Parts: sequence; structure tokens; C-alpha cells
Amino acid sequence: MNTFGQLFRLTTFGESHGPAMGAVIDGCPSGVALTVEDIQTALDRRRPGQSALVTARQESDRVEILSGVYERKTLGTPIAAVVRNHDARAQDYAQLTVEDRPGHADAVWKARFGHRDPRGGGRTSGRETLSRVIGGAVAEALLLHDVPSVRTVAWVSQVGTLKAPLPKTAPTRAQVDAHATRCPDAPTAEAMAAAIVQAKNEGDSLGGIITVRVDGVPVGWGEPVFGKMKACMAHALGSIGAVTGVVWGSDDVLGDLQKRGRDFHAPGEFGPSEVYGGIQGGLSNGEPMSLSVFFKPPATLAHHAKQGRHDPCILPRAVPVVEAMALLVLADMWLLQNARPHQP
Amino acid sequence: MNTFGQLFRLTTFGESHGPAMGAVIDGCPSGVALTVEDIQTALDRRRPGQSALVTARQESDRVEILSGVYERKTLGTPIAAVVRNHDARAQDYAQLTVEDRPGHADAVWKARFGHRDPRGGGRTSGRETLSRVIGGAVAEALLLHDVPSVRTVAWVSQVGTLKAPLPKTAPTRAQVDAHATRCPDAPTAEAMAAAIVQAKNEGDSLGGIITVRVDGVPVGWGEPVFGKMKACMAHALGSIGAVTGVVWGSDDVLGDLQKRGRDFHAPGEFGPSEVYGGIQGGLSNGEPMSLSVFFKPPATLAHHAKQGRHDPCILPRAVPVVEAMALLVLADMWLLQNARPHQP
Amino acid sequence: MNTFGQLFRLTTFGESHGPAMGAVIDGCPSGVALTVEDIQTALDRRRPGQSALVTARQESDRVEILSGVYERKTLGTPIAAVVRNHDARAQDYAQLTVEDRPGHADAVWKARFGHRDPRGGGRTSGRETLSRVIGGAVAEALLLHDVPSVRTVAWVSQVGTLKAPLPKTAPTRAQVDAHATRCPDAPTAEAMAAAIVQAKNEGDSLGGIITVRVDGVPVGWGEPVFGKMKACMAHALGSIGAVTGVVWGSDDVLGDLQKRGRDFHAPGEFGPSEVYGGIQGGLSNGEPMSLSVFFKPPATLAHHAKQGRHDPCILPRAVPVVEAMALLVLADMWLLQNARPHQP
Amino acid sequence: MNTFGQLFRLTTFGESHGPAMGAVIDGCPSGVALTVEDIQTALDRRRPGQSALVTARQESDRVEILSGVYERKTLGTPIAAVVRNHDARAQDYAQLTVEDRPGHADAVWKARFGHRDPRGGGRTSGRETLSRVIGGAVAEALLLHDVPSVRTVAWVSQVGTLKAPLPKTAPTRAQVDAHATRCPDAPTAEAMAAAIVQAKNEGDSLGGIITVRVDGVPVGWGEPVFGKMKACMAHALGSIGAVTGVVWGSDDVLGDLQKRGRDFHAPGEFGPSEVYGGIQGGLSNGEPMSLSVFFKPPATLAHHAKQGRHDPCILPRAVPVVEAMALLVLADMWLLQNARPHQP
Repeated sequence: MNTFGQLFRLTTFGESHGPAMGAVIDGCPSGVALTVEDIQTALDRRRPGQSALVTARQESDRVEILSGVYERKTLGTPIAAVVRNHDARAQDYAQLTVEDRPGHADAVWKARFGHRDPRGGGRTSGRETLSRVIGGAVAEALLLHDVPSVRTVAWVSQVGTLKAPLPKTAPTRAQVDAHATRCPDAPTAEAMAAAIVQAKNEGDSLGGIITVRVDGVPVGWGEPVFGKMKACMAHALGSIGAVTGVVWGSDDVLGDLQKRGRDFHAPGEFGPSEVYGGIQGGLSNGEPMSLSVFFKPPATLAHHAKQGRHDPCILPRAVPVVEAMALLVLADMWLLQNARPHQP
Repeated sequence: MNTFGQLFRLTTFGESHGPAMGAVIDGCPSGVALTVEDIQTALDRRRPGQSALVTARQESDRVEILSGVYERKTLGTPIAAVVRNHDARAQDYAQLTVEDRPGHADAVWKARFGHRDPRGGGRTSGRETLSRVIGGAVAEALLLHDVPSVRTVAWVSQVGTLKAPLPKTAPTRAQVDAHATRCPDAPTAEAMAAAIVQAKNEGDSLGGIITVRVDGVPVGWGEPVFGKMKACMAHALGSIGAVTGVVWGSDDVLGDLQKRGRDFHAPGEFGPSEVYGGIQGGLSNGEPMSLSVFFKPPATLAHHAKQGRHDPCILPRAVPVVEAMALLVLADMWLLQNARPHQP
Repeated sequence: MNTFGQLFRLTTFGESHGPAMGAVIDGCPSGVALTVEDIQTALDRRRPGQSALVTARQESDRVEILSGVYERKTLGTPIAAVVRNHDARAQDYAQLTVEDRPGHADAVWKARFGHRDPRGGGRTSGRETLSRVIGGAVAEALLLHDVPSVRTVAWVSQVGTLKAPLPKTAPTRAQVDAHATRCPDAPTAEAMAAAIVQAKNEGDSLGGIITVRVDGVPVGWGEPVFGKMKACMAHALGSIGAVTGVVWGSDDVLGDLQKRGRDFHAPGEFGPSEVYGGIQGGLSNGEPMSLSVFFKPPATLAHHAKQGRHDPCILPRAVPVVEAMALLVLADMWLLQNARPHQP
Repeated sequence: MNTFGQLFRLTTFGESHGPAMGAVIDGCPSGVALTVEDIQTALDRRRPGQSALVTARQESDRVEILSGVYERKTLGTPIAAVVRNHDARAQDYAQLTVEDRPGHADAVWKARFGHRDPRGGGRTSGRETLSRVIGGAVAEALLLHDVPSVRTVAWVSQVGTLKAPLPKTAPTRAQVDAHATRCPDAPTAEAMAAAIVQAKNEGDSLGGIITVRVDGVPVGWGEPVFGKMKACMAHALGSIGAVTGVVWGSDDVLGDLQKRGRDFHAPGEFGPSEVYGGIQGGLSNGEPMSLSVFFKPPATLAHHAKQGRHDPCILPRAVPVVEAMALLVLADMWLLQNARPHQP
């Protein structure tokens, strides 16, 4: 289904070559400061055409709020927002109507849905993530209003074989955005950019890891069994198209797995958050939460590659999408946490 | 919340030191062959006390079906099943009422719930997974009845630094159970057993990887956006207590991430399933599905370690739990798939 | 929340004086014939300004489909549709910003939401039902495609003290629409029209009953306990603003309640459907289903009444809304019915 | 499905002739005072065999709590409770295995589920309501702890043609239980009892109306559109097997519908609650809430009637079931209300 969340709920719609993409956010309480600029700022971070590292597809991606906001505050009613699709360039995709694209889900989608929009990826397109970023912006507005200690930031920590050192404290979004790769470690960022440009020139592509970190979550968010914080994060992040894995609490996944318990549970250089990822028993433990999100290299199309209309490495543009999904989980957890207030 | 699934739904209950653990499975169609022995067989695989490698806690874990089954077939009504807790040995845990256990979620749970059962882990105990295994057994019965091509098997593929080679075809459960470690590769299994016994003797513990593989899933199961097969699997498997990561489609996670797109998407030794994990665009693609589930080494208690009442390595007993969670996702996907039958 | 349904799901948004009203329908399978005209036709039936009997508020209510439909067929993706609000006439409502309207929910809404749109009823406005009619049109398209035997029609059967005789067979929509009152019995319709005009002239209002009848539902739709067909219909119809009661299976509610069992259960003039309303044990029994939906007379505002901008009797315009809610339940039940296909 | 509620959730199970009936309540916060006696007291009010007016079927209906309660307080974990079925008397029902019972849902159920328990009504039996009463008792414990102003009481207000006068204030449960009919107006109660005994002797049955009243609900509970208080109450009460209608806010349904708006909305003898049923715009308005729930006369079986094993009038035993369903809605609304706390 196209709805995510239990109390703070995002419903998304839109095909990449249809009239518009959109989102309806239901469950946001009233009185939260929210403007169209808040959402636009978030969308601009995932917009194509921002640098030489990403697709040349041009989309202005201007958002319009249709409901739920009045005089720069939420009304407590559903917040609907839409972005018109402009640069459809159906002709670029004309030949795709004949053949399924290798490495894409076209054949699978056809088997399931039969009737398929031949003009592009439809709902399997990365353009679908635009709606998630809208939802994430509203989630962040809610958290900023209610629990301002919560700070969510994601960055590119690995591209291909290039790995940035783990920062001791979370970078700011400004630090992340300072480089087109969205890697806050300058030397690694330079090397990543060079690798991406080279892959682009060769019609090839690169995957990697985005790290997302959440500071300031109070103790006890999450539900104990199936609604564990880590399970919901895995669901949220695993629902992003190119993601192939989600790991929490470690920058050195396989190395940590090989440790014995005493070493694993010993407080590390970065404190307990390194080990437990800020989550114990499924609930936030008050420490910074951190997760690693693995992205496969995108399947490339010689056709598209020639025209520069593909992303050789989607990680820089995926950073706001990862943040959005984490924010959606946090906003939902916050409302669920409220719902059962008392402790005897 | 304590319910998992949308149409095929498992609700679990029970504290590890309360009167009973249980499960209610709602949404299973009528007429599915199901006996109490089917469930008992599944439970016996996760029972403590099976070998020297696991906890000495003794629980007979006899299941009783309270509803939903008549003359060895499901009625289409909720299937409730309970297992009484016998070996509570509250005295063993008496001192725990005073102090929170390091590495456990006790402090976090207290912050959230205030009123806490001091006699043990309560709902954070691994004993909670018993209810999942009941649910998985019913899910498997449904799949066996409706889509017998689906075969789900999990095994221990890594313990500490010891890694088994990836088998070309999925092992059978008999092959997996042939060794107490539940690693189907005999030489690796022997080495793992030795490592686990050594850790046990030293009051230490080991983590590792369980691989789960599903063969025979027809093309097109899953939902395109938030209900992607891989997202739901990540949620299901990530909800198991000790799991720290879920990765699909690869036996060599970090190695694959470092590949360029052309190499990544080239069919590997094991065919496309190695690359895509049997999932494309969020939907099953007809190839075998495979996922790697990372388990941290359990936190150990000197107190418990002395009495042999802890699992130095929970992976062998976690194998049926991993299978159960995968089966629950598959049964739910199957019913969802049915719900929208037509293709024009 | 603003979502209705489990598998066939309608999410609605829009304030009556905001930019637009809209609906997202998720869960409709692919390949269903659906055009913008299908939805427009349904909307036109609830549009204000159709006759002297209803509000003079002018709204063209042109719908635009933003997603989910391609070449006159559904794609299996979410169907989003919006209607811009034009005749907001904020000045008419200017004085409302000062005072809560008697008989309206203004004060209650303020207590709950604090921040309230002072320009009109917001989400409590009857204009919200526009989104329901969009959803109903899609539900009907699905049923027409999959289960064409299902025919849903509603009509005004009572206004104030004027009660139409129960027809032996369901009228067609054309017969219902033949008179501005939407009562298919011509003499009663004439009397109703006169009563409504008189109430309007006197600044007063009238309530009554809408009967909804569904023919051709196969045996066995619905869920046995909490998802009974009658319970879901009661929820759906009871969620319409002015509805004060829902009764099924009888045209003579209080008379029937006073009967003894033998008389009640004896087949009546109209067959078993009269008695059981086409529902037994919560499931459809293959007979025509019928429900009576009670509407209170609307609270009137002298201010509005003077300008003719209120509905002295909302029943004629509520007929398509009642049909829409019944259709949404039926489409959802149909998908749920599919999900568990087998009978041994 | 067999789960009711969004945050405060009741899952029920059990066939009337299977091993046990049961309930799992998920979402109840921790620290709520709750004992097995609280639940037993509620169950005793719906137990068969209490007076000459009801079925002679003997069931001790002793409840056991399996989880979720420790030292007379809730743990915040799922609360599971079961009642063993003793008086199955399968032989009484033996002949039913051959023929479907007229007026029962047997044939419909068979069409839907195929495999059916021939020993009795299974899930369509009134015995299923036992699980609802368990859920209602927990819901009441929560409300008593958090919002003690809320007082829910139901009573029999009409049996056949006999109608009790509307009390100015809500009766207490003790007043309701003072007479076996559960009608708090003594003269009417006497007449009702005589009518029920006569119907019983003649192998006939009687329907009627149960009124449920809720005092002390704060302003603003409920959700504006599909989750209106009145819609959820209609769903909850309409899901009870024998209920044929739900009407709110009036003791004189058809009379009120015939009123013009000015008269309808004028404060009545009993204040605004008489008119609006304590609900405006879907939200509680701070006034007492009242609903009328219509019950059809039960279908009778000569076979059963001879042995006294049927209820000639189920209303007295249905009173705690009506209360339970109202309480479940209120507890859920309360948690939902908490979830979105702020008003700017």
C-alpha cells in the first residue's frame, strides 16, 4: 500500500510521467508552524540537476499545499501537497514502450499489474521519493515543535570503495551540503566526486552507504515487539528503491559481528551508541541513534547514459530521502508515545 | 504493538515468567490442514536445552490449540495457541529485582513502562519468539496448502569469524538440523561448535549471520512502495531482539557494495538471485530470495553464565525464528496478492 | 483519521474554504475502466445549485485526476483526484470568525484543535463529502468491472412527516433523479418538494430518511465478528455528518422491533431481505441488502438563510454520498473476500 | 477480522463448542489497576443461567489471565484472558450437523468458509460476546484510572411493545441489575418479565431496545471525518450479532426525524444531549452521550425451545455486551486523543 505510519501517516501518489506527484499527511496535530517554504527547502535538496554528479533531468519541483495549513500553521486536518511533473520528455522514453529495461522492475511489474504506464518507471521510479520528502518535512516540523531536541541528519559515508571516517559528533546539514557528494569529510568527498564523474563518463555507476544519525531522542520511544524502533527504521529505510541493507549501531558491520560479546558490549570510542545504535529492547535508550543504509549501484541504460539523463550515483540525492524516512518513523513514534502517557 | 501483518495477522502475548506465552493467528483461510503436531514440531526446534551449545533452561514448551482448528483443518476463525511457562525458577532471577542487567533493556523499559515485571526480561526476553514460531507454523501450513512451490529455509552461515561457504542450492531443514549449530556445512559447523563451547566456558558469547532463503515464490508478490517485499522482510527480521542488520541478495555485503554497476548487475555465479535477492521494484521476481540477518553476540551475565542458563550463541535457536518471520511475511503477501486478482 | 477502508482505501483532504478538496484511492486493482467523466458524473449529482430545493452556493466542482489512470484504465497505483474551491465568498463568512455558529461543531472543534480555520466549517463542512463521492465513483468502477451483478442505489424515502411507499424492486438512478427531491415516488416527491420550499421560505429545515439498496451481492461477503457487513455499513453511513441513525433490513423500524420472533422471522411481503436486510451472521446472504439512514434537519443560520446559501433539506444532495459510502464498503469487502479464496 | 480498535485493541478468539473463548487486549498502558475479579464481575453479568428469563445453558465462565497483569496492575504488555467452555453438550447439537438452522447464518457461513464447525454457531454464536466483555472490563479499568469522570451504563429500555420512560439521569448499574430484565423502571420491568416468560412458554421470542449512556466524556473526543465518535459507536454496536440498528441522541427516533430544524435543535426537556446525543461534528461535546441499540427477536429452534436452552429475549444478557463495546470505543478514543496533545 501507499501509506506509511500508524498515527502520523503519509500517503503518496503520482507516476513519474503522469500529471503530478503528491503526498497527504494525516495525523499531524494542529498548531505546528509549517510553511510552503519548509517543504520546498527539503524538496530542493533531492531535486535533479543540482550538480554534474547527478542526472541532467530538469524539474523545477515547485510544491503547492492544497489543504491542512492556514496562516503558516497546521490545522490538524490532512495536509495535501502536490508537485506538477514538467520535464516528462515522453519521447526520450518512447522506445522503452517496446522493451523492458534490464535491471529494472519492468517485467516484474508487468506480471503483477498487467496494465503498465510505458512512459517510464511509474511508481518504481526514484521520482516517487519526492512524496516522501514532503512527508519528512512535515514530520520534522512536528518534531521541531514538540521535541526540539531531536536532530536528524544523514550523509554519504561510502561510495564504491571510498569510505569516510566516522565523525565523533553528527555533522550539520550545512556541513553535509557543503559538498555536492553530501559527504562531510572534505578529502573523501573530493575523491568520491572524481570517482562518480569517472563512472558517469564510462556509462557506469556506483553504490555505497548513507549514514543517518538521530540525536536527542528521549528514552523509551518505540514499541517492544513488532514495532521496535529498529524494525520500523528497517522497514522505512528498506522501502527506498535502491536500498539493499540496513544495519544499525555500527560503522564497521562485519568487523563488529566477528567480535565476542565482551568486546562487543564494551563501551567503544564513540560510547554506547556505537554498539547499540541508540536502541535497546526495541526502544530508544537516550543515546544517539545511528544506522547505515546500503545502496546498490543503479542499473544503467546506455540510451540514458548517452544523454546524461541518469544518476551515476544516487547517494547524494538520496540523503534527504533517508532523512525523510527516519523522520516519518520518529514522528509516528512520538505520537504513539504520547498515546500511552502514564507510568505509575 | 504486538500484532504483525495486514491480512495474515499474528498477535502475541506472554511474559517469560508469567503463566503462559501465546499467539493468535487471524486471517488464515479455512480448510488448511493443520495439527497441533505441526506447531509442536516447529516449537521443538527453538526449545532450550537441546544441546550443549545452548541454555540449560528446561522448558517442555507443549503447545495447546484453543480455537480455530477442527478435525485437523483450520476453520477460518482465529487460531489461538498457548504454551505454559514451567521452569520459571523465579529464585534464579530474584537478585535481578534489585539491579538492572547491563546490556539488557531493563533501564529503557523501566523509563517507558514504569511498572515492570522484575522476574525476568518480560516481553524483551527471547522467550517471546516462541509465539512467533507458532505463527510461522500456521503461515507455513497455509503456503503449503495454497502455494506448495514456496520453500523457506534458514541456516547459520557465520559465527564470530567463522563463515560457511554459500551453497549453490538451498539446504533442506534436515540438512540444517543435522548439526547442533544449524550450519549445513559440516567442517564449518564443527569449528563453530568448538568456538561456541569455548565462549561458553569463558562466560563469553558470539554473534553471527543467519541466511534465509525462499525458493518458489511466484513473480509479483509484494507491494510497490512502502509494502515492498524487502521492506516487510526487513521489518519482520529486524523485529527479532538480537538482530542488528538485514541485508538482501548478497553473501558478500560490503564487497558487493564496492562494485561498480556493470559488475554488480552482471549475473553472478549463483544467477540473478545473488544480485537482486529475488526482489525487484519491491516485488518478487521469481528467482530464489535470500537475505542475511545479522545477530549481535548476546550480553552475558556472570550470574547466569555460572549456572549455564544462558545461550553463548543464540543463532542455532534463532534459525526457526528467522524462518517464522519470513513465513509470516510470505503468507501475508500471498493473501494481499489474492486480494487484487486481475490483470487486464 | 481521514482514511476509510482496509484494502480499498479512501483518504480525503481539503477544507471547504481552502484551495481544494481531494481524494486518494489506494488499493484499486489495475485494468479497471475509469475516466474523469465517471467521477464528474457522480460529483454533479451532489453539486450545489442544482434546483430551488438546495443551496444557491455555486461551485462548478470540476475534478482533475492527478495519478493512477492511464488511457482510461486504472494502473493499480493510487488514484488522486482534486476539485478546486472557487466560490469561497469568504466575506459571507466573515462574521463567523467572531462567533461560533449555534448547532454547528465550531466550539467542539475549537476545544479539540485550538487552531481553527475561521472561514467556514473546514472539515466539518458538508463539502467534505465531495471527496467521498470521488471514492465511491472509483469503487463503483471496480465493482462494475469485477462483480457487475452488484447494483447500488439510494433514494429519499422520507422528508419530515412525508413517507414514500417501499418499492417492490429497487428504482434505477434515472428514476431517482427524475425528481429534484430524489424520491422516486412521484406523488410523495411533489409533496416533499412543497414542504422543502416552505421550510426554506420560513428559514427552517427538514430531516428524513434515505434508503439504500444493494442488489446482486454474492453470498458470503463480510467478516464474521467486528467486520460484519452491517457493522461496516453502520460505520460508513454513520460517518456522514448529519446522520443520526442507521437501521438495516426494515422499512418499519419500530414496528418490526415490536414483533415477536415468529412474526419477525416469517418471510414478509418483500421476501427475506425485508427481515434480514440481506445480511446474516454479518455476511451477505445473497438477498437484496437494504438500509435506512436517518438524517437530522440541518441547523440553520438566519444569516445564511437570508441569502439562500443553505440547504433547507440536505437529503436530495446526500443521496450520492450515501451511495458512495455503501460502495466503498462493498469494494473493500470484495477485495477482502478475494484475499481468502479457498473452500475445501 | 477479529480485532477491534486502533490503539486500544481487542482481539477475540474461540468457537462456542471448542476448548475455550478468549481475548487479547493490546495497547493498555502500564500501571492500571486490574484484577481477575474485575473481569469476572463483568463476565458474570452476561453469564447464562442467571434467571428464568434466559437460557438454561450452564457455563461457569471462570476467567484466567494469562499475561499482561502483575501484582494487580497492568504491565503495558498484551493482556490475554481465557474462559474454558464446559457445557458443550455436543449431543444436543448432534442433529444440527445434518441441517442448517433456519434464521441462523449457517448456510451463509458454509458458503463463505466451506469448512464449518457443525457443533454449534462457532463464531456466530452469541458466546463470542464473552470475549468482548473481557475487553470492555479492561477498557473500563483504563478509563477509571485515567478519566474517572467517564461513566458508562446501559439498560433495557424496550422489550416488544413495552417501553420504559426515559430517565432524567443515568441509572447506576446496581439499579439496572436490580431486576432480572435489566430495565431500571420497576413497573415496566415487571411487565417485560411477564412478556418474556410468556414468549418462552410459547417457544417464541422478543426483541427491543437497549439504551446506552455515557456521562463525563470531556469535550473533543473522536476524529472529525471517518473516525467520528458516532461512526465508531455505530460500528462497535452494529457488530453485535442481533443488533439491527443504532440511533443516537434520541429516545423518540421517528418522532424526532419528523420535526423541523427549529424544533429539533431547540433544547429539549433533557437538554442538548437529547438532541445531539452528546456528539457534534463527530466529536464529544461534553454533554451526556446516549445511543439506542435495536435488537431483533432471536430466531428460535423448536428443538432448543423444548429444552429451555435458548434465550427468548437476549436483551438482559446483552446489556454488558453493549457497555463493553461502548467502553472499547471510549478507551481507544482516549488514547487517540492523547496522541495529539497540543493546541496552540
